[in-house]
Amino acid sequence: MRLKLLLVLAAMTLSAQTGDAPQFNSGDELALPKGYREWVYLSSGLGMTYGPAQSTDAANPNFDNVFVKPSSYRAFLETGHWPDKTMFILEIRRSHGKGSINNGGHYQGDVVSVEAAVKDEKRFPQKWAYINFARGDKAKPLPATSSCNSCHSQNAAVENTFVQFYPTLLDIATEKKTLNPAYVAKSAAE
Amino acid sequence: MRLKLLLVLAAMTLSAQTGDAPQFNSGDELALPKGYREWVYLSSGLGMTYGPAQSTDAANPNFDNVFVKPSSYRAFLETGHWPDKTMFILEIRRSHGKGSINNGGHYQGDVVSVEAAVKDEKRFPQKWAYINFARGDKAKPLPATSSCNSCHSQNAAVENTFVQFYPTLLDIATEKKTLNPAYVAKSAAE
Repeated sequence: MRLKLLLVLAAMTLSAQTGDAPQFNSGDELALPKGYREWVYLSSGLGMTYGPAQSTDAANPNFDNVFVKPSSYRAFLETGHWPDKTMFILEIRRSHGKGSINNGGHYQGDVVSVEAAVKDEKRFPQKWAYINFARGDKAKPLPATSSCNSCHSQNAAVENTFVQFYPTLLDIATEKKTLNPAYVAKSAAE
Repeated sequence: MRLKLLLVLAAMTLSAQTGDAPQFNSGDELALPKGYREWVYLSSGLGMTYGPAQSTDAANPNFDNVFVKPSSYRAFLETGHWPDKTMFILEIRRSHGKGSINNGGHYQGDVVSVEAAVKDEKRFPQKWAYINFARGDKAKPLPATSSCNSCHSQNAAVENTFVQFYPTLLDIATEKKTLNPAYVAKSAAE
C-alpha cells in the first residue's frame, strides 16, 4: 500500500516535471512551454488556407504541426472531451521542395511562428483563448473578439478544437459522441 | 534514500509501461509498437519522392510522419548519437485537399502504411534494419540488401537516419559534430 502511494507520488512528480500546465505571469502573459516538441503530436497540414501566418511563397507553403499536452490527450482518449487547462501548440514551419535526396514534394524547415490554444474556464469567460507567440517566449491572449475565437467556436468539431483535422481523435470523438451538433449538421450537408 | 530508490523504480516502471523496446517474436517478426503515436514526433513531409508507398494521386500526395522512441530521443539530445535498440516509426497517411473550413493546401487522412527502422547491433550485422508493416501488426525485417538499407547507409545525415529532414535534430547533430562525413561533403558540394 505504501509502495503504491509512492508510485502515485512518483508519477505525479514525473508529470509535474514535464511542466505541461499553462503558466501565466502576473502580466497575463502565457509562457511558451519549452518542452512542447515532446508533447503528443496530433497532425500536420501543408498550406492550409484557414491557418494563421500564411506563407507568401506559393511554391513553398508553410507546414503546421499540432501538439497537445500529454495529460489532456489521455483525458480525451477516455472521454472525448478536453479537461480544464488543456493546451495546444500550433507550430508553423517553412517548407523546402528540394534538398538532399528529396526531388519532389516538401519537407520541413525553420520555425516561422508558434501559437497556443488554452482552455481555462476561470480565466476566460469564453473558456478558450488563443495566444500568438510569433518567435517570442511569452505573449498575452488575443481578445475574446478575435477572429481565432470566432472561427474556432463556429467551425470546430469538438468544443473549440479542429478535431476534424486530427484523424486519430476524430475516431474517438465519433465513438464517444462528443462532436459539436453544428459540425455534425454541416458535415451531413456537405 | 529509500524514497529516491522507489522514485527511480517508479520511473522505470512507467518507462516500461510505454513499451518502447523493439519486440521480436521467435519467428523474427517485429511487433508494431501500439503506442507509437505517443512517441516523440520528429517531422512530416508531403509527397517526398524518396519515400516508400508513394501515392498514385498527384493531386493528393501522401504525408509521412516520423516518430522515435522517447528514450532514444533523449539520448540523441545528449550525445547526437542513437543508442542500441533505437526505433523509428514512419507513418504514411493519405492527404485531403478540401474539407470543412480548409479551402486549399493539404491535411491528413487515413493511414496507408506503417514502417519501422530499428538499430540492433547484435541482431543485425549491418546494425540497422527496416520493417514494412503495411497495415499489419507484425513483420519481418527486410534483407540487408534491401534498397532501404542501401539508401539509408549512403545518404543519411547521422548513422542511417535522415536527420537532414528533422530540423530540431539537425541542430543537435551539427553542434555535437556527429554528422556523417559523406553527408557533410555532399552538402558542401551542393
